[in-house]
Amino acid sequence: MKAVRLHGYHQQPVIDEVPEPTVSGPHDVVVKVGGAGVCRTDLHIIEGQWAEAMGVGLPYILGHENAGWVHEVGSAVTNVAVGDTVILHPTPTCGLCRACRAGNDMHCIASEFPGLSRDGGMAEYLLTSARACVKLDPSTQPQDVAALADAGITAYHAVRKALPLLYPGTTCVVIGAGGLGHIGIQCLSALTAANIIVVDRNANALKLAEQLGAQHTVVSDGGQVDAVKDLTGGDGAEVVLDFVAEQGAENDGFAMTRRAGSYFVIGYGGTLTIPTLDVISTERNIIGNIVGTYNDLAELMVLAEAGKVTLHTRTYPLADAQEALHDLDAGEVRGRAILVP
Amino acid sequence: MKAVRLHGYHQQPVIDEVPEPTVSGPHDVVVKVGGAGVCRTDLHIIEGQWAEAMGVGLPYILGHENAGWVHEVGSAVTNVAVGDTVILHPTPTCGLCRACRAGNDMHCIASEFPGLSRDGGMAEYLLTSARACVKLDPSTQPQDVAALADAGITAYHAVRKALPLLYPGTTCVVIGAGGLGHIGIQCLSALTAANIIVVDRNANALKLAEQLGAQHTVVSDGGQVDAVKDLTGGDGAEVVLDFVAEQGAENDGFAMTRRAGSYFVIGYGGTLTIPTLDVISTERNIIGNIVGTYNDLAELMVLAEAGKVTLHTRTYPLADAQEALHDLDAGEVRGRAILVP
Amino acid sequence: MKAVRLHGYHQQPVIDEVPEPTVSGPHDVVVKVGGAGVCRTDLHIIEGQWAEAMGVGLPYILGHENAGWVHEVGSAVTNVAVGDTVILHPTPTCGLCRACRAGNDMHCIASEFPGLSRDGGMAEYLLTSARACVKLDPSTQPQDVAALADAGITAYHAVRKALPLLYPGTTCVVIGAGGLGHIGIQCLSALTAANIIVVDRNANALKLAEQLGAQHTVVSDGGQVDAVKDLTGGDGAEVVLDFVAEQGAENDGFAMTRRAGSYFVIGYGGTLTIPTLDVISTERNIIGNIVGTYNDLAELMVLAEAGKVTLHTRTYPLADAQEALHDLDAGEVRGRAILVP
Amino acid sequence: MKAVRLHGYHQQPVIDEVPEPTVSGPHDVVVKVGGAGVCRTDLHIIEGQWAEAMGVGLPYILGHENAGWVHEVGSAVTNVAVGDTVILHPTPTCGLCRACRAGNDMHCIASEFPGLSRDGGMAEYLLTSARACVKLDPSTQPQDVAALADAGITAYHAVRKALPLLYPGTTCVVIGAGGLGHIGIQCLSALTAANIIVVDRNANALKLAEQLGAQHTVVSDGGQVDAVKDLTGGDGAEVVLDFVAEQGAENDGFAMTRRAGSYFVIGYGGTLTIPTLDVISTERNIIGNIVGTYNDLAELMVLAEAGKVTLHTRTYPLADAQEALHDLDAGEVRGRAILVP
Repeated sequence: MKAVRLHGYHQQPVIDEVPEPTVSGPHDVVVKVGGAGVCRTDLHIIEGQWAEAMGVGLPYILGHENAGWVHEVGSAVTNVAVGDTVILHPTPTCGLCRACRAGNDMHCIASEFPGLSRDGGMAEYLLTSARACVKLDPSTQPQDVAALADAGITAYHAVRKALPLLYPGTTCVVIGAGGLGHIGIQCLSALTAANIIVVDRNANALKLAEQLGAQHTVVSDGGQVDAVKDLTGGDGAEVVLDFVAEQGAENDGFAMTRRAGSYFVIGYGGTLTIPTLDVISTERNIIGNIVGTYNDLAELMVLAEAGKVTLHTRTYPLADAQEALHDLDAGEVRGRAILVP
Repeated sequence: MKAVRLHGYHQQPVIDEVPEPTVSGPHDVVVKVGGAGVCRTDLHIIEGQWAEAMGVGLPYILGHENAGWVHEVGSAVTNVAVGDTVILHPTPTCGLCRACRAGNDMHCIASEFPGLSRDGGMAEYLLTSARACVKLDPSTQPQDVAALADAGITAYHAVRKALPLLYPGTTCVVIGAGGLGHIGIQCLSALTAANIIVVDRNANALKLAEQLGAQHTVVSDGGQVDAVKDLTGGDGAEVVLDFVAEQGAENDGFAMTRRAGSYFVIGYGGTLTIPTLDVISTERNIIGNIVGTYNDLAELMVLAEAGKVTLHTRTYPLADAQEALHDLDAGEVRGRAILVP
Repeated sequence: MKAVRLHGYHQQPVIDEVPEPTVSGPHDVVVKVGGAGVCRTDLHIIEGQWAEAMGVGLPYILGHENAGWVHEVGSAVTNVAVGDTVILHPTPTCGLCRACRAGNDMHCIASEFPGLSRDGGMAEYLLTSARACVKLDPSTQPQDVAALADAGITAYHAVRKALPLLYPGTTCVVIGAGGLGHIGIQCLSALTAANIIVVDRNANALKLAEQLGAQHTVVSDGGQVDAVKDLTGGDGAEVVLDFVAEQGAENDGFAMTRRAGSYFVIGYGGTLTIPTLDVISTERNIIGNIVGTYNDLAELMVLAEAGKVTLHTRTYPLADAQEALHDLDAGEVRGRAILVP
Repeated sequence: MKAVRLHGYHQQPVIDEVPEPTVSGPHDVVVKVGGAGVCRTDLHIIEGQWAEAMGVGLPYILGHENAGWVHEVGSAVTNVAVGDTVILHPTPTCGLCRACRAGNDMHCIASEFPGLSRDGGMAEYLLTSARACVKLDPSTQPQDVAALADAGITAYHAVRKALPLLYPGTTCVVIGAGGLGHIGIQCLSALTAANIIVVDRNANALKLAEQLGAQHTVVSDGGQVDAVKDLTGGDGAEVVLDFVAEQGAENDGFAMTRRAGSYFVIGYGGTLTIPTLDVISTERNIIGNIVGTYNDLAELMVLAEAGKVTLHTRTYPLADAQEALHDLDAGEVRGRAILVP
């Protein structure tokens, strides 16, 4: 089959012909890929940022955001059958550790991360496990929802964690209205009555944000912290969801929170530099976020099927993976780029 | 009356003769001070760290950790009467703002902070308000409990916030077994079955920590992060309560947390420097903490009256305030120094 | 002034001429009433159901759901001024007890309940306290929002408590689409993506429910439990909000919950009869609800000012109080009846 | 092998010779039983109370509270190996449904309940699944801990749910200091600083309760509700844990709760009869409880291994099952009866 493989850090992945995966263990599931999202993390992978943490050998297939149809199942798989339309939780988990037994799939001590720690879904077929499969309505087109598998679940997970803080009268700042952010805005609109302020340096992204439910938008041109303060009576926001967290956004984000507020770090790349006096004198929190639970993904698919979260996507043939990565890096993708094998 | 007043930053406070305070508003309460705790924050005040945040005019009376007996009450005070033994929440609050109406006294938008923003309790009498008074059993000696008013409430508040994370089988690291830390250890012992590891550079403090319920102690001599990792199977702790948060402790503390763990900042003085990748890849949290609610203080007094939290104190006459501050700064106070007017 | 007073149980209240109230305590506030809601509780009061619990002497003025303009304030009132438009939390509270200090106004140990335990707002003027006043935008018409003071806060409080249970994919049944229920439906629509099923015996009420956001409606004609089961795949709902809780609804409501579900009792009058085996074998909960917190009311007013909760009201002159009570009792009021002095 | 089988309702189970179970599915685990607890639910099963709910065919082997050593494992079992000492969660679960994915094992839609819905552990060997096995220190004696598998997990689960309500200064009433209750008291002592009042009709049970940490005991002789009120300043308790919930305890329990309090139903057999007015006017809750999660059991084993929960047991040879059931029914077992094959 055709697959998009990374052969070396700081160089572009290429299209290789590789063998199709097959089931071996009782919970294995092979999925025929219908759509594979292209994510900023793919750029970070290529830059080598995840090399040490994941320790994966090169070459390997990229793609951690996948949906498709079940192609083959192991002997103990009961929750899906060949032909089912599925979206895949990014981390096949063990189901037996404390984290799995508490529903915190993203903290499984024995999970894998296809596309980061082993072959991913930028290919015709993908090997995953029964525990990663969320069954969808058969009318769903995988390429329409694939980006929910990682961008979506990550945005939803952060929003869901923030919900108890976002009662009527509060403000939520969203930094970055791109692939994750534009989903986060829709989740906020569907699940809260909070005042939403979106900060981005791209005017088109802000225009999309308004259409998706933002009450206010702020161009990130140097005055963004002051602008947020002005929009919140000088106080700042109860919650800031930072989908960027690099190039200065990470310190802006904390500065935009009000007393007792919480700064949710979702993007990455920058470095927080914060005096502990600032943390304690106002009792503010910095909340880490990564991916989400299996149930998060299932809940998000309910929102998607109800039309409350719709993805803005741009599809590319699998063979055009390099172009998709380039467009993302150049800031030319509104919403999410999707490879279609 | 005699009072300990600060006349300039970076210089020692002195004993002045000043007029006694009197009630003017309907909720005013004047308390005859029975004990006034000496806190690391007093050292920070003298160093000018709080000057900008508080904007108080000099000279003024120090002392934000007070207990005593009600001496005079305003016309609308119904919860205490002259002669009652009381411990004082550090911030007299308005009772009308959103934070007060949610029980979050420490975030009142119109609170004062005697000893930081106006005259405090290192004096014979202190002006406070009805909403700050927690009534105690008349047999209680104010000098025995005064340190619970700030050191105690702050430690208890952080522990109480951490409780849902500290189920049986988890580990809590306490950095700093001094004035706040030795109370925090007792609160943890009284309210959780968690494994408690205490980190301090002072061997005597660690000895006290063991007596108060620590399962393990670690000398802070450079290898403390590795030592905590070793004691937790290589993972780190679910919760770290950092009562120091300066001189490197602030980055140690984050490094000691495990995946999905939470680092509670309670002390201050240092600066966090943390890549956002480290925050998100392990989904860890940094939690700010300051003082606590009125109900926190009332709950802590229940523990104290039941003998589950006992203070290790060293009393000084009011006139020896400089000596007490010196001893604290020199690390020569085990537990808490208390001025007795 | 004119006032609607109850002189005896099981008889209609009458319009009396009584003296206007005046401020005496420092926190007293006299409000010129702009709208006073007529509630099913008023019918229950007349029937004597609250006589024992409240122990109020007759005659007294009914009306526990009020909004208007500040007319006179006590010496210590700082949060409102004469002329301000206000809606009133139903229970002026002490601000000093454990419940008040935790934000649970409805459990204040020293609260009063004008209209139940002392003179209420079906009059030209009402005596309340500073702690009951929520300041509104001056353009707000009190008669448009008065019903939010009790019907609204009660419905909102129950919905807010249920929110953590109502993630996407869950179902919430609302029993009773009347004064409280039609507000509850709007709060659910504004704050959740849950599937809403409304049960009522009145077809017009169900029609209104659909307009307000119900996905499904069920006529309460004997087959309502089965109908809810059918609409939920045979399982029942995660949450049932019962705004009736009498005449059989109280046992229907529990029967409509699914395994691990919660039945919220908001209306009253009936008697639960439930085997403990049914409670434990499915681990279901029965949750009591009454009024709500001051902050609940403030949050609800944010929804109202944003147009997310709009009241369906029918106004009557104060002199027509008997007619309004009659119409309510006869089931002829869609939404809420409001007396306008 | 020898097994205790029920052949008909309302008659005693008998010792039969039956074939040993063997593994067939990939997750199957056969355990050599080291201890099987005898529970009041066994009496209820014999009385036919669970017949309809479980729909199990007779005869079948009783015993839902088991610990032992792994004897044989299926091909996909990775978490335990032959020879491991294990305690068994009572319900082998699917690991794939919403409830399992949220950690709520007791609400698995495809679980079984050995001893209730299929052959249980009052036998030499028991068939269970990998997901039910909690691995123990090899020095643990199964007969010493078996009762934690059901009595223990059920008591712990209820206590853990109540923890957020039991801050210092609150009171928890425990009704019934028998098999479950005496574990519940120890969990409360280990995890809270609440005031514990134990109600039982047996003086010996109350004596044990005092040794385990109860501050007060009340003989259940008709005046128990008044006695609890007297011990709580007339208010009642924040939390009541009712391990009986039959023969009148179920209505006592609700009557013992204070305003905003919660009544936890854990035992069963009686019928609640409660006016909805009483539920709403004081905003009290009735909380169902059953068994607990896998993690609950793992946490409880931490308390047990630390010596914070110790079982009071009386062992019987498997052949004396009828005698053990008789003694339990006659109220002659302090703590828990354990069959040892």
